[in-house]
Amino acid sequence: MEYQKITPEGVEYLRQIISPDRVFYGEEIEYDYHHDELPELGTHAPDVVVQAVTTEEVSAAMRYAYEHVIPVTPRGAGTGLSGGAVPIYGGILLSVEKMNRILEWDMETMTAVVEPGVLVMELANAAEERGVFYPPEPGEKTASIGGNVMTNAGGMKAVGYGVTRNYVVSMECVLPDGKVMQFGSNVAKNTSGYDIKDLVVGSEGTLCIATKLRMRLIHPPKVSYTLLVPYGSLEKCVGTVPKFINSDLNPTAIEYMPKSLLDDAAYYLNKIMPHKTADSYLILMFDGSSTEDVERRCDQAAEICLENGAEDVFLCNTDERKEAVWSVRGSALEALKASTTDMDECDIVVPRNRIADFSRFADTKMEETGIRISIQGHAGDGNMHIQLMRDDMDPAVFADRYPRLMTEMYAKAKEMGGQVSGEHGIGHARVKALENHMGPDMISLFHGIKAVFDEKHILNPGKVIG
Amino acid sequence: MEYQKITPEGVEYLRQIISPDRVFYGEEIEYDYHHDELPELGTHAPDVVVQAVTTEEVSAAMRYAYEHVIPVTPRGAGTGLSGGAVPIYGGILLSVEKMNRILEWDMETMTAVVEPGVLVMELANAAEERGVFYPPEPGEKTASIGGNVMTNAGGMKAVGYGVTRNYVVSMECVLPDGKVMQFGSNVAKNTSGYDIKDLVVGSEGTLCIATKLRMRLIHPPKVSYTLLVPYGSLEKCVGTVPKFINSDLNPTAIEYMPKSLLDDAAYYLNKIMPHKTADSYLILMFDGSSTEDVERRCDQAAEICLENGAEDVFLCNTDERKEAVWSVRGSALEALKASTTDMDECDIVVPRNRIADFSRFADTKMEETGIRISIQGHAGDGNMHIQLMRDDMDPAVFADRYPRLMTEMYAKAKEMGGQVSGEHGIGHARVKALENHMGPDMISLFHGIKAVFDEKHILNPGKVIG
Repeated sequence: MEYQKITPEGVEYLRQIISPDRVFYGEEIEYDYHHDELPELGTHAPDVVVQAVTTEEVSAAMRYAYEHVIPVTPRGAGTGLSGGAVPIYGGILLSVEKMNRILEWDMETMTAVVEPGVLVMELANAAEERGVFYPPEPGEKTASIGGNVMTNAGGMKAVGYGVTRNYVVSMECVLPDGKVMQFGSNVAKNTSGYDIKDLVVGSEGTLCIATKLRMRLIHPPKVSYTLLVPYGSLEKCVGTVPKFINSDLNPTAIEYMPKSLLDDAAYYLNKIMPHKTADSYLILMFDGSSTEDVERRCDQAAEICLENGAEDVFLCNTDERKEAVWSVRGSALEALKASTTDMDECDIVVPRNRIADFSRFADTKMEETGIRISIQGHAGDGNMHIQLMRDDMDPAVFADRYPRLMTEMYAKAKEMGGQVSGEHGIGHARVKALENHMGPDMISLFHGIKAVFDEKHILNPGKVIG
Repeated sequence: MEYQKITPEGVEYLRQIISPDRVFYGEEIEYDYHHDELPELGTHAPDVVVQAVTTEEVSAAMRYAYEHVIPVTPRGAGTGLSGGAVPIYGGILLSVEKMNRILEWDMETMTAVVEPGVLVMELANAAEERGVFYPPEPGEKTASIGGNVMTNAGGMKAVGYGVTRNYVVSMECVLPDGKVMQFGSNVAKNTSGYDIKDLVVGSEGTLCIATKLRMRLIHPPKVSYTLLVPYGSLEKCVGTVPKFINSDLNPTAIEYMPKSLLDDAAYYLNKIMPHKTADSYLILMFDGSSTEDVERRCDQAAEICLENGAEDVFLCNTDERKEAVWSVRGSALEALKASTTDMDECDIVVPRNRIADFSRFADTKMEETGIRISIQGHAGDGNMHIQLMRDDMDPAVFADRYPRLMTEMYAKAKEMGGQVSGEHGIGHARVKALENHMGPDMISLFHGIKAVFDEKHILNPGKVIG
């Protein structure tokens, strides 16, 4: 598809249909709009930035782009890690950051309607104020709900509460030609034609732009305890995970961190941890409806840990202790960034009983390549956040070695029945990895689906599929 | 698309690639294959019936059909209620009833791999023997897992455990051209390209044929109690439902039955109910990890019921009492069938707080048309099973009135934010209703998706979309 370049007249037109103070052109565009949270993946300037505030504005901008064959990159809070919101073909960057109102609380159906630019933490906090609970909690709490839905983000509590997909009830979307459609419905069961809603969830803004989202809420747990569990080896630490999956203790979160990362993060945050000398740490969360219930499950969990080689088990049942542990876990990425020169990262996911195998593989690769690999993350759901760090390696050597290492890790994940991305998405950075992983038949199916929604390929081109 | 008629040579070829004793032609075909559980929707003879036993056989049959442009209707146990497995264009009826093995139990990831012809009750029982739990429990327990996945069946416990979709981890499917593909993956989080698995779930065999299914298992509840709650009016009865949705009592099931149906079903089964003189009944189920926990929630639930107009609350905590209540609820459809001459049914779903409104509307329609309408079903998830019964009305008058009544009910559901079908699917019987409900833009999107998978329109033609 041959894209047109937006003209000054086009910009003028957008200023008319949107608003002069929410359309930015050329030099007026802030550098932030050139990249997401991982500028290492490449920065790209959009030709024009449009900050829409209504569905009608999104629709009008899309109609214009459709008619003139101009690429449009939708953007929420710009906190992605795969370049999904980076305008690699220039054109219009359509930001929904100002569509940030919570429109409705419906306590009879336990749902809330939000605009896509509402931040995850804003929805979570507003829900808490109303005595209800929005469980998805990705590490990046300043991510937008729209972005979370479009990458089907999971976060720490996915083990107990599921991923964002499970909380999307219905959505209003603008299609590439400007048409406004409703996908999904506020009903608890549905078999009425093809499930377009679930196709759009996780589609990274390549099929349509979500302009309203009805999200499911649940009742908050009455009690939540955390266990910090030191182990003498990573092997034993992640080896315990399948015992929890196969128990009926129903943990909310199962995370793990190697000592080095715990140290880095605790240092970074200036926090004192209840324990810090072990090789590896498992962090468990148990939510429940009563203290007795949660205590009983924590006791049983502690037994399982100790039977499987844990050195000790620290119960964190005060807000202060819980906050220390989870803030340290939450700042892993920042701490790693601060600890090295350059890095790349991926978020491979493997079946939940294969993390130990994957870690062993990464260890041999670390020795082989000399590249420092940090794996931490969601042990309970098999989703690993893996960072490759240059440290003081020669930049040219690193640039040569790390892409090959990435390729080998993706191949290993595939061999284990895993997938390219658990929650960060494909963006433009993992397109090749997805292609290799899926093979031509699946990619051809993806292209077919893309064309059904966007036959001109103007919406977020170059993302998910090439 | 112009379909070819299968020739005697074609049948011979199918006998070679499948097996002579699993290919039936013309007169050899049993009448059962002409219809599903609702023969009133129309019976159609297939030209040939193929009982495949392997993925390779399904693939070979599809390759033949694809090459010769012969329509193929996939069929599981044939227990559908919308004509989804009825070969309305003749051609090949591809039955997976003999693909009925449970292939794998993976307790580390809590999944089981099954062939599509395994019956729901077979999987449920086999899981129970292994100490695990497969929660989806549609009224029809002799339905196949393949059929349940393809209609995204829900059943009674969807309130607490969710619908079949939530239990499909991954699937092996044969596409219309015979290609074998894997959709989904045994990982707990996934954002790796478009979610084809969820598109296929609920697609009623119009996109591909599932040949293997990896289903999620959970730990069984330790305790399960049932409450039978009589009310003086349906209004009060279903009016209590939103109180439960908005409580943290987490019921497993919330069903309701009018007295007449309870009487019919109890009579039909020759069961004695703990109570039978009230106008309407709410049936609640509470599952939990301890007797104290379940008792506490039952106590609170009873309070809610009594505060909202219940006449009494009967606790069923013995197997015998629970069995009586749930078998009576489970036999509603059979009892209704036995109580009338002809009937049609639908399974409209509305937001969970709108059931009382819909019931009121149905009451006025019943008076207006003279057609007996029975509504019973899944109060907790807004999914109503609605039967229109002819009784002794003149057949010609009934035939004239009931389709218009159906149309009015669908329109009312749409007005309330509901959907055409909660779990029975569209089949061929509800295609027009879906079209009216969705409008041309959505139907055009559906056609686009259908064409991506099945550009020759040979797979289950005339179902879901016309």
